[in-house]
Amino acid sequence: MTAADDHHVVIVGAGFGGLEAARNLAGAPVRITMIDQRNHHLFQPLLYQVATASLPTSEIAWPIRFLLRGYKNVTTLLGAVTGVDRANKQVLLEGEGPIGFDTLILATGARHAYFGHDEWEPYAPGVKTLEDATRIRRRILSAFEQAEWETNPARRAEWLTFVIIGAGPTGVELAGTIAELAHDTLRGDFRNVDTRSARVILVEAGPRILAGFTEDLSSYAERALERLGVEVRLGQPVSDCRADGIMLGEEFLPARTTLWAAGVAASPAAEWLEAPSDRAGRVRVEPDLTAPGRPDIFVIGDTAFVAGTDGKPVPGVAPAAKQQGLYVAGLIKARLQGKPAPPPFAYRNAGNLATIGKRAAIVDFGWIKLRGRLAWWIWGIAHIFFLIGLRNRLAVALNWLWIYVSGHRSARLITQRDPGSGSASR
Amino acid sequence: MTAADDHHVVIVGAGFGGLEAARNLAGAPVRITMIDQRNHHLFQPLLYQVATASLPTSEIAWPIRFLLRGYKNVTTLLGAVTGVDRANKQVLLEGEGPIGFDTLILATGARHAYFGHDEWEPYAPGVKTLEDATRIRRRILSAFEQAEWETNPARRAEWLTFVIIGAGPTGVELAGTIAELAHDTLRGDFRNVDTRSARVILVEAGPRILAGFTEDLSSYAERALERLGVEVRLGQPVSDCRADGIMLGEEFLPARTTLWAAGVAASPAAEWLEAPSDRAGRVRVEPDLTAPGRPDIFVIGDTAFVAGTDGKPVPGVAPAAKQQGLYVAGLIKARLQGKPAPPPFAYRNAGNLATIGKRAAIVDFGWIKLRGRLAWWIWGIAHIFFLIGLRNRLAVALNWLWIYVSGHRSARLITQRDPGSGSASR
Repeated sequence: MTAADDHHVVIVGAGFGGLEAARNLAGAPVRITMIDQRNHHLFQPLLYQVATASLPTSEIAWPIRFLLRGYKNVTTLLGAVTGVDRANKQVLLEGEGPIGFDTLILATGARHAYFGHDEWEPYAPGVKTLEDATRIRRRILSAFEQAEWETNPARRAEWLTFVIIGAGPTGVELAGTIAELAHDTLRGDFRNVDTRSARVILVEAGPRILAGFTEDLSSYAERALERLGVEVRLGQPVSDCRADGIMLGEEFLPARTTLWAAGVAASPAAEWLEAPSDRAGRVRVEPDLTAPGRPDIFVIGDTAFVAGTDGKPVPGVAPAAKQQGLYVAGLIKARLQGKPAPPPFAYRNAGNLATIGKRAAIVDFGWIKLRGRLAWWIWGIAHIFFLIGLRNRLAVALNWLWIYVSGHRSARLITQRDPGSGSASR
Repeated sequence: MTAADDHHVVIVGAGFGGLEAARNLAGAPVRITMIDQRNHHLFQPLLYQVATASLPTSEIAWPIRFLLRGYKNVTTLLGAVTGVDRANKQVLLEGEGPIGFDTLILATGARHAYFGHDEWEPYAPGVKTLEDATRIRRRILSAFEQAEWETNPARRAEWLTFVIIGAGPTGVELAGTIAELAHDTLRGDFRNVDTRSARVILVEAGPRILAGFTEDLSSYAERALERLGVEVRLGQPVSDCRADGIMLGEEFLPARTTLWAAGVAASPAAEWLEAPSDRAGRVRVEPDLTAPGRPDIFVIGDTAFVAGTDGKPVPGVAPAAKQQGLYVAGLIKARLQGKPAPPPFAYRNAGNLATIGKRAAIVDFGWIKLRGRLAWWIWGIAHIFFLIGLRNRLAVALNWLWIYVSGHRSARLITQRDPGSGSASR
């Protein structure tokens, strides 16, 4: 055992960034401890498909310790980190003693955020965890069940109105899939309601949907959504969310199901470090992804704010987090070997993808832009490729093929009742 | 519209019996309303596989209204029945108005029961619903996570001890699968504990396991369990269940995870009808499965107590419930056509199956008894055959093949935290 073998790297968070760091450090002469408050890594880009009953939970999530079982220098612990004791170089945990580190990597991700309106959360839940997704799935499916009971036409229409706030990729994907669920999958399952009469309304404060894409791709996506029967409302900020609808400026829009896809905030890593942060709570890291003044603490993924080489902030997407995990692992290895530090982190944008329902998508690789059915196939193949593990790739591919061919969705289960939500969830 | 078209059959409960009744009445000149408090039909014989992380929830459950979508005279409603107004021939519902019936079929199933010790439930949960199964899955997986943290060897051993109370088919299946999970699937995933040291203890008050089978099959099953590393304790009734273990007579057995597979009680249909019932709360029905004195009210499945033609009670298994659903549908159709009533219900026992882990099973068809690997294949094929829907058959077959070949289990997700369960579930 050399001295380097005693170098202890603690990674908090087994998302895309943390997992990539662990894997790339696994061969190095270090001990690694991976701590996450959940037992599973989640493939977040497909989480909206769980929320809309297209995929079961187990096909987009894997036990972290299973993913890391082959790396003998990695210990995985299920635990909730509550802070960082920087003076003593320790991570603080809920209900367990502290864990010391030589190098710390914080990759704790983000939650959806309501920017000063946390009271909206019960009425407009967001989708960041498996629990969020099954809760939203229950809400959507229960709304149709309520409509089947309802005899008052106005109230029935409220149950059949679905509002999605925020027209980024998640909001667009949710709106498109809910429209397909109502207008196609559920058609014929009910006797008292025609699910095709359901309204799906996508609300966006900005002037266009998918603002991260070029204008022509975003206007194509808007038309594709409208073909699916989604109403797109642009330039209308939400001023209130309630159980029975939302306020768009002065207009009240009655709806029993509202989903939030408008914003996220970083986990409290900036507070733990008392480090400067941006409006979304992300730690403003150095160009080498270390926390200011702390070369032994890295912050990566959705928890970090760093400008790309083009001056624009690195986006909060899975490929960026993975590149950062890889970069940090390389930097730590270089240090241990006494080699010079690598150049600052540079984000390579491999392309932007978004999907609209099960037959259309937009793809922007920079050198080529695609839209329509071909783009959808590229989107599907790319996502299946990045899914971890052969079995899940196969299972997800089968599921999609099934939905594509038959229009049925297998994961239409109402489970996990909210104790407090009353009759709506039964 | 004829008068017969106005005959309204209300079915409460979409388990095996209720669903079979609905399907066989679908062609008759009746209106049918199916009411269930859940939106899904559950393939209960495989529920223990969800509890032990072998199958995801969505592969053994299907939306009821999807299963009945093709039967245009069937309306499916999601609702909780709270009673029966026999004088006015109405079913009473939680939060909705009553629903009148001409003929009522109660097929409301059973829950696990503690026979006067309801205080044991939090410490020894049973497995009857999807929520039960995911809760138990979380407990089992969390116990290994706790053991990984624990430094005190005695407490670590408690986290690695799993007790199953009751050695009927469910108890045997749970014990065998947990032993495989610990000794095979999870091996190598942990750094501080050797999961092969986990103890799985099957406790039975009676003199042998699987008392419904012949003595030689049950002793074979006992040896098969012991080969999997399960400790079988016979003739030892449980006298107490606590958070940290159970009392077997005067002996205290420390264990952090205890599961209940010892008994069930019928749903409160007997109370709704003020009808005579047996010890397990089942309605003592007439030979034609009607409630005493009420030819318009049928009770079937786990909710009914009826003697078979051999004098022995009809067992609470899926084939019996299906045969009863079919029988009742035929009887109602005969009545509507003015035909004579069919002979009393007679149960045909098509065979008894139980599985012990992933390579052994016992099968008793009466004319032939089988055990070992061949019996396991028969068990697997029979269960896949009875799964509803092509897609689920394929998905379950793929899952099992994957576990069989690789030993990995894909559904190892800790979700749905208990709000009150503290650190054990994290």
